[in-house]
Amino acid sequence: MRRFMDPESVALIGTPRKTGAGAFNNAEMMLRYGFRGRIFPVNPAGGEILGLKVFPAVADIPEIVDLAVISVGRDRVAAAFEDCIRAGIRRVIIISQGFADADEHGRVLQEQIAHRARETGVRVLGPNTLGVVNNYSRFNTAFVDIAFPERFLSVSLIAQTGFIQVASRNLAWRDIGKAIDVGNSCDLDIAEALDYLADDPQTRVIVVHMEGLKRGLAFLESAGRASRLKPVVVLKTGRSTTGAKAALSHSGSLVGEDHVYDAAFQRAGALRIRTSGEMRDAIHALAVLGEMEGPRVGVVTVTGAGGIMAADACEERGLTFGALPDGLREKLLQGLPGWVHLSNPIDIWPIGMLGGRYEEAWRTALAEMLRSPGIDGVMAVFFVSASPLHAELNLEQAFEEARRASGNLKPIAAWPYMESAYAIERFEQIPGVACFDTIEQAVEGLSFCHLAHRLKNRRTPRQRPFPVERSRADALAARGKREGVLLGRDALELLGCYGIRAVRGTEAKSLSALVKAARAMTPPLVLKLAGRAFLHKSEWGGIVTGIGNPGALRAAHETITGNVRAKDPGITIGAFELQEQVPGKEILLGLKRDPVFGHVLACGQGGVYTEVFRDVSLDLVPVDGPAARAMLESLKIWPLLQGARGERGADVVALVEAIERLSFFASENPGVAELDINPLMASAQGCRAVDARILWG
Amino acid sequence: MRRFMDPESVALIGTPRKTGAGAFNNAEMMLRYGFRGRIFPVNPAGGEILGLKVFPAVADIPEIVDLAVISVGRDRVAAAFEDCIRAGIRRVIIISQGFADADEHGRVLQEQIAHRARETGVRVLGPNTLGVVNNYSRFNTAFVDIAFPERFLSVSLIAQTGFIQVASRNLAWRDIGKAIDVGNSCDLDIAEALDYLADDPQTRVIVVHMEGLKRGLAFLESAGRASRLKPVVVLKTGRSTTGAKAALSHSGSLVGEDHVYDAAFQRAGALRIRTSGEMRDAIHALAVLGEMEGPRVGVVTVTGAGGIMAADACEERGLTFGALPDGLREKLLQGLPGWVHLSNPIDIWPIGMLGGRYEEAWRTALAEMLRSPGIDGVMAVFFVSASPLHAELNLEQAFEEARRASGNLKPIAAWPYMESAYAIERFEQIPGVACFDTIEQAVEGLSFCHLAHRLKNRRTPRQRPFPVERSRADALAARGKREGVLLGRDALELLGCYGIRAVRGTEAKSLSALVKAARAMTPPLVLKLAGRAFLHKSEWGGIVTGIGNPGALRAAHETITGNVRAKDPGITIGAFELQEQVPGKEILLGLKRDPVFGHVLACGQGGVYTEVFRDVSLDLVPVDGPAARAMLESLKIWPLLQGARGERGADVVALVEAIERLSFFASENPGVAELDINPLMASAQGCRAVDARILWG
Repeated sequence: MRRFMDPESVALIGTPRKTGAGAFNNAEMMLRYGFRGRIFPVNPAGGEILGLKVFPAVADIPEIVDLAVISVGRDRVAAAFEDCIRAGIRRVIIISQGFADADEHGRVLQEQIAHRARETGVRVLGPNTLGVVNNYSRFNTAFVDIAFPERFLSVSLIAQTGFIQVASRNLAWRDIGKAIDVGNSCDLDIAEALDYLADDPQTRVIVVHMEGLKRGLAFLESAGRASRLKPVVVLKTGRSTTGAKAALSHSGSLVGEDHVYDAAFQRAGALRIRTSGEMRDAIHALAVLGEMEGPRVGVVTVTGAGGIMAADACEERGLTFGALPDGLREKLLQGLPGWVHLSNPIDIWPIGMLGGRYEEAWRTALAEMLRSPGIDGVMAVFFVSASPLHAELNLEQAFEEARRASGNLKPIAAWPYMESAYAIERFEQIPGVACFDTIEQAVEGLSFCHLAHRLKNRRTPRQRPFPVERSRADALAARGKREGVLLGRDALELLGCYGIRAVRGTEAKSLSALVKAARAMTPPLVLKLAGRAFLHKSEWGGIVTGIGNPGALRAAHETITGNVRAKDPGITIGAFELQEQVPGKEILLGLKRDPVFGHVLACGQGGVYTEVFRDVSLDLVPVDGPAARAMLESLKIWPLLQGARGERGADVVALVEAIERLSFFASENPGVAELDINPLMASAQGCRAVDARILWG
Repeated sequence: MRRFMDPESVALIGTPRKTGAGAFNNAEMMLRYGFRGRIFPVNPAGGEILGLKVFPAVADIPEIVDLAVISVGRDRVAAAFEDCIRAGIRRVIIISQGFADADEHGRVLQEQIAHRARETGVRVLGPNTLGVVNNYSRFNTAFVDIAFPERFLSVSLIAQTGFIQVASRNLAWRDIGKAIDVGNSCDLDIAEALDYLADDPQTRVIVVHMEGLKRGLAFLESAGRASRLKPVVVLKTGRSTTGAKAALSHSGSLVGEDHVYDAAFQRAGALRIRTSGEMRDAIHALAVLGEMEGPRVGVVTVTGAGGIMAADACEERGLTFGALPDGLREKLLQGLPGWVHLSNPIDIWPIGMLGGRYEEAWRTALAEMLRSPGIDGVMAVFFVSASPLHAELNLEQAFEEARRASGNLKPIAAWPYMESAYAIERFEQIPGVACFDTIEQAVEGLSFCHLAHRLKNRRTPRQRPFPVERSRADALAARGKREGVLLGRDALELLGCYGIRAVRGTEAKSLSALVKAARAMTPPLVLKLAGRAFLHKSEWGGIVTGIGNPGALRAAHETITGNVRAKDPGITIGAFELQEQVPGKEILLGLKRDPVFGHVLACGQGGVYTEVFRDVSLDLVPVDGPAARAMLESLKIWPLLQGARGERGADVVALVEAIERLSFFASENPGVAELDINPLMASAQGCRAVDARILWG
């Protein structure tokens, strides 16, 4: 990837002969941008443009260039690519549109190019890309005229579209250093771009825009490694249903479910943001401020109203207010009227005005907060004025001195109201100070700094192995694979081989067999329809609970048979399932094999409210003990699992283990497409699966 | 209020003798701002400043001024106010801090001023305010130096703090016209400021910042009237627990619960925004674009990625994509390769580039979308460039022509990426075009335009009267008022007088009385503890269900008695309640008298999950039929009430009526502080209250 970003020589295949207004001539744009490498325009017409010799064919170029950029019509791309291969070129950017982003024919064309790339080892970026920007070497492959930014942040962007790349100067208050548009990713993709930027010393923060992913596991690995080294921020679009549809037609990517992406980003240590506004603030905060080690904020504000707004924003972003540093109250309030308060947020206007020492109050408050072990970052709301009447209100020196006095680089997020552009210039010269558009965005910026810290230091779950009743498990799994599905008793048995215990029960066809089986069981019992014909048993009237004696069992059998006959006289009941009825909370455990990320494990509320409240948390397999517990703790029903309102809770340790065992099951059974344990009854006595279904495919 | 904003003469009491840097001299600021009225500084030292004669006392001023502005220390404010009263001044702004915003002594001082204002009819704005800004008359009472803005929007701001007023130029891309800082609102408050701005021809949009309200009903009335005339946008801060605490200590306002404010703003037709960023976008959208009559957006974008981002944002903001106008596909795709797609969002880059008619494609797409009856507003993502190479990409003329051709003013929200400041200047000259910072903010802007339309045309609920069993109701209510509470059977009976029916049941002390009562009831029955000692019956083990015969009733009696004895051997069971057990969904209906807005009605999921999922919706009393139905429809359990998974739903008509009757009950019983009906069993056969409690106070 490095040579893609920093070539010494470039062939531009399909450069127009026209230059100037309306020509979109990429050779012209490259020169205007200030690229100092060798440029070889290729056009059958030959001749010369802009003082550059135009070569009729790639083969005519007198050297093997580092990089070729193809921008001919889609039907001529394959031939141009072959020319590059023959000329010994190892790196190609395909700008042209009309491939998997367009139609089936385009998809086939793209696949042919990808195939040739794999065969020859020539690496391809695109098609359907604007290519790359590298402001360190003034290199930009875009065919639109963009002014070279004199100053930029050491932030690099990977995008699935050129527009963010072009607009990147609009995204941060300062521009960014590098950008890579992976386009349709027929060969090089986000994962490889991440690998490059993770090790790139010119990149301190990585930002990724994606609409979808194909190689989910490669992304997890690359992003997971990169995020241990520097913050990785991700904007995943196509969240909405309409958006997802548009994504398919736009860049040919498969768009997975949004919650799965949430879980995947969490696992990869990537900081997900949701809007381009958040993206701008995240870039700015992470590049200028770096990490914030804890959630405790200290606020100094010239307005109480701003303190309240900061408090609202902190609560929404999961930050807290740290305690006032010891002794600060006494220092600041000395000599002031008794009615002046001091807490965190520090409302510093009355203190500074009544005391006549505005700047000193700021310096003291900032320095003490930065020094305090109970405060991880500072939020400053102040007033910057260009008026000659208010020069003494300007605070650069107070900020600088407080920073020096603190001896650390804890972040200061600032909202300098009134004349922001002026303030940014001056305040952002001070190390660890970033200015934001609003109070809420400043708080958001701090929250990103803290989140990046937590993601960098996250733990990686490891699968714990469990003993398996191997031969029974293999036989059942083989049957499942063959038949595509295991239901009820069979599914419970297979899970049982992995140590996920089921309620006691049996399957039987005749009433007499049921009655006989009931003798060995502890009432109350439950009688249920079994078999594939009755997937939604309750809709068939196929469940009777609270069966206490043989008479009740007979009555239940009659009721269910009657219900089924009333609904569909033609259908035959293959078998019934008889189970001991166990108390507890109804839990759902499940698996789904995501086409991008593999097995996803779900746990949440089971029973009738599952669909209503969707109180479910997801994680990627493997899920270990701490990860399983975190999943449970994130549920709304977590207080019920712990016990509430005089009711006993569930055995959480057993529940955690059941999740770990299910994760182990998934890792051993890659062919399982979907699995539901619903409900799993969780009580203080442990948990027992009541019903299950497993689908292969 | 008008004369506060537009006085011809002003007395400035407490103006410092010093001027220039660091003096915060409000006479100086007023002159610098360009105020052309008569200014009378008052300072015991007399003399002259800035060419103005300084008067030793208010009494020395040779005329009765329209307005006095007091900015002396808090202990001298009362005397200065008396001077104003004696001098015949009818309007006073009190800038000084240290009143209800500070401590108890300050609260008393403030109450004295408020009392004198009521006695004399002299109107007071403040204390603890920066006063007012009126850019139409270049009048500004702030003691900080603010440059007069040459251009501003016809937007007016009411705030509980001066900082938003000062920062208002930072809030919108253009400045705003008027601002009123109500401060501690000892006399004039938000409601009166709303009354003034509602009728003010210079105000097209009203924005309110508040931390809390005291006169909730006055606000509802004033905002309710104003929002029928022009959009009223509200930023209510102090949402968080910490924020609420800070609000109390900041401006002495009572901060009510945030969800109640939500319901109140909805009722008042006020458009609530949550951050200062949203405030800026709402101001901009409503002032520049006005209303959007429906939710259907048409998107034209130079980038497919931008279309996806717009789709995400539309879904999150409740907007939809309108159908492509008839014939537009054919017009735009004529002569283009078959792989070029067209849908809404219109990805116009390949169309414009391949067809060589970029500007024409835009003009056609915009004009047809604006004209289409199926599209209510347009979102445009484009590229503005200052480069001489791209003059033909600039679209002002296409926008202007499309606007003219459409013959309407449907809003166009634009994201002109790359060089925004330049774009805003030119595009916002075109009627009904507003530019935003990001795609998401542009969509947000449109959603505010649509929301303002819906709020303006909202319906106002009217209480339907119901027959009441008057004498029984009066007796029970009198007892409730006397004793402070009615529980169980008594509470159900009082509600029964208002037509909210309860399950059949009885209260009895002895087992024999219970057995006798059971004979007249239809099993299964439920036996429960009654009386104030057992508020949380289930925690006492005080409920047995499914009682089918006298034997089971005796056993249940014994079980409960045993449970109670085991918990507390000393306690006496006063009585038991015996009820018929009815099927259905458990619903909670409730009332709470909010200190600011009066009775709030709640409905939602009852039973054990009430606290877990908090699936409750609130509205202010009165709640009529359509409002009650909207409450139910907003619940997550709404699908269950309609019937799902083979189960029958509830009788929604009966449920709606129960809510209306409860609202009527509230209107007749203003002394009720809290009321719970939990659960109300809602089935296809209607609904029946099972338990209730009513608190007075």
